[in-house]
Amino acid sequence: MAENLLIPRLAIIGVGLIGGSLSLALKEAGAVGEVVGCGRGKPNLERAVELGVIDRYTRDPATAVADADLIFLATPVKTLGTVTQELLPGLKAGAILTDGGSVKGEVVSMIEPLLPDGVHFVPGHPIAGTEKSGAEAAFSTLYRGKRCILTPTVNTDSQALKLVEKMWQIAGSEVVQMSLEKHDKILAAISHLPHMVAYSLVNAVGSYDHYEANILEFSAGGFRDFTRIASSDPVMWRDIAETNRDALLEMMEQFEIFFGELKADIAEGSGEKLFEFFLRSKQLRDAIL
Amino acid sequence: MAENLLIPRLAIIGVGLIGGSLSLALKEAGAVGEVVGCGRGKPNLERAVELGVIDRYTRDPATAVADADLIFLATPVKTLGTVTQELLPGLKAGAILTDGGSVKGEVVSMIEPLLPDGVHFVPGHPIAGTEKSGAEAAFSTLYRGKRCILTPTVNTDSQALKLVEKMWQIAGSEVVQMSLEKHDKILAAISHLPHMVAYSLVNAVGSYDHYEANILEFSAGGFRDFTRIASSDPVMWRDIAETNRDALLEMMEQFEIFFGELKADIAEGSGEKLFEFFLRSKQLRDAIL
Repeated sequence: MAENLLIPRLAIIGVGLIGGSLSLALKEAGAVGEVVGCGRGKPNLERAVELGVIDRYTRDPATAVADADLIFLATPVKTLGTVTQELLPGLKAGAILTDGGSVKGEVVSMIEPLLPDGVHFVPGHPIAGTEKSGAEAAFSTLYRGKRCILTPTVNTDSQALKLVEKMWQIAGSEVVQMSLEKHDKILAAISHLPHMVAYSLVNAVGSYDHYEANILEFSAGGFRDFTRIASSDPVMWRDIAETNRDALLEMMEQFEIFFGELKADIAEGSGEKLFEFFLRSKQLRDAIL
Repeated sequence: MAENLLIPRLAIIGVGLIGGSLSLALKEAGAVGEVVGCGRGKPNLERAVELGVIDRYTRDPATAVADADLIFLATPVKTLGTVTQELLPGLKAGAILTDGGSVKGEVVSMIEPLLPDGVHFVPGHPIAGTEKSGAEAAFSTLYRGKRCILTPTVNTDSQALKLVEKMWQIAGSEVVQMSLEKHDKILAAISHLPHMVAYSLVNAVGSYDHYEANILEFSAGGFRDFTRIASSDPVMWRDIAETNRDALLEMMEQFEIFFGELKADIAEGSGEKLFEFFLRSKQLRDAIL
């Protein structure tokens, strides 16, 4: 093993799109030595080895992390506490633990209290993904040009933070640091709220379909594009909705205020207010193109 | 001019994406003779001639429709009544008028009472579009593989209906007939409601940005894709919101019921209900892929 490897041994807990893509990116960059995968589903792990996403696998977390320099937790948010408990006995001194969970407050409060001295945790969240899942879906360029948010706490080791930052930069991401509170609010706004809206929209239109036959058949590309995110993994989103509850409810209420204002403008038939409402949105949207 | 042309002379009122693309499709198929364009903006009309979207133009509707066999109204929904009044004096006996308006109830009630005997109106709506506008945005394959809904009324001439149907088929569309009431409900569900939701979402997140700096900067591809439709023309959407008010308000209330249910499930922390809600949506969405 070369001396200058960033991560001589990497353990990926949860070998899906997120974990698998990080492994592929680091392998492609020559930044890792051996990659050990760990997960529940044997067929997925075997496929991951076949595809070169990981080098070998075990289904026992404590075995997976033995001698690992860095451990990437990429299982669903709600499992991160349990998974951490399971892998603790195998951790070597100085090991760095990081994660890809979409909610940071809850994750930090689950993991930090469990860790012994000399094991470092760096909470992280790469803002990337597709609607696909499993090792098959992983690809080395998933993180390229994307942002990765790290949310260090008062307990975070600065050397460990630097290494994790370097790792994401090698994977092609722009790394940003912020407080976990800010992270959870921003994500509630730009990701969690849109998903709630899309899920509600599809359910509303789909249920209307029961008495107005085949309504969804008429949906043009616009509807399909708009509702693409309503196809995301229900388990992952259940977990996010549960773990980022307060920030999400706040944003949902924010949305309801604007939606209610628009509804009132429509009921009132106020063309001027409607124009203003749509124009303001168009301007905000065009500014982020 | 060949004898077997479907439309020896075509007049396009409003030479933008919708009108211009129909003209290009019919020209490419050799189904039209001369195409006369009519609109307000001279630079756009001149550009349309340059690009071969139309053969010549006039800014006077009555002149534009002189000797025209078919007139396609592609100006904003709310202008259709006025435009029809303006072009009436120029119409020849047997002329067929059709439109591309996104709302059919209001359009029919504006146009039908104005027409003299021997002039035929076929209300239509090609379900296609992009966020772009103007003659520059027109392209001949816009309608290919898309649906076009025709909503004949008791007054609609069956021969005129057949010709308009044939015209859209030549442009590449699948033509479907239904009542205007059904059209307006379906469109409220699959197009107008999603736009109201997207506009509200961008306004909600954008206004939150005022005190949580640069929130939109973090928006990943998902947010950008999801809110693409919030970039649509504010005038067009003001008109749609005004003219399809009742069906739209009904669908907005339908949406609020589901969004409210989801909010209650999140507040309650009911993982099972959340999972069911997301799964139902995913299944509905995946069925229209």
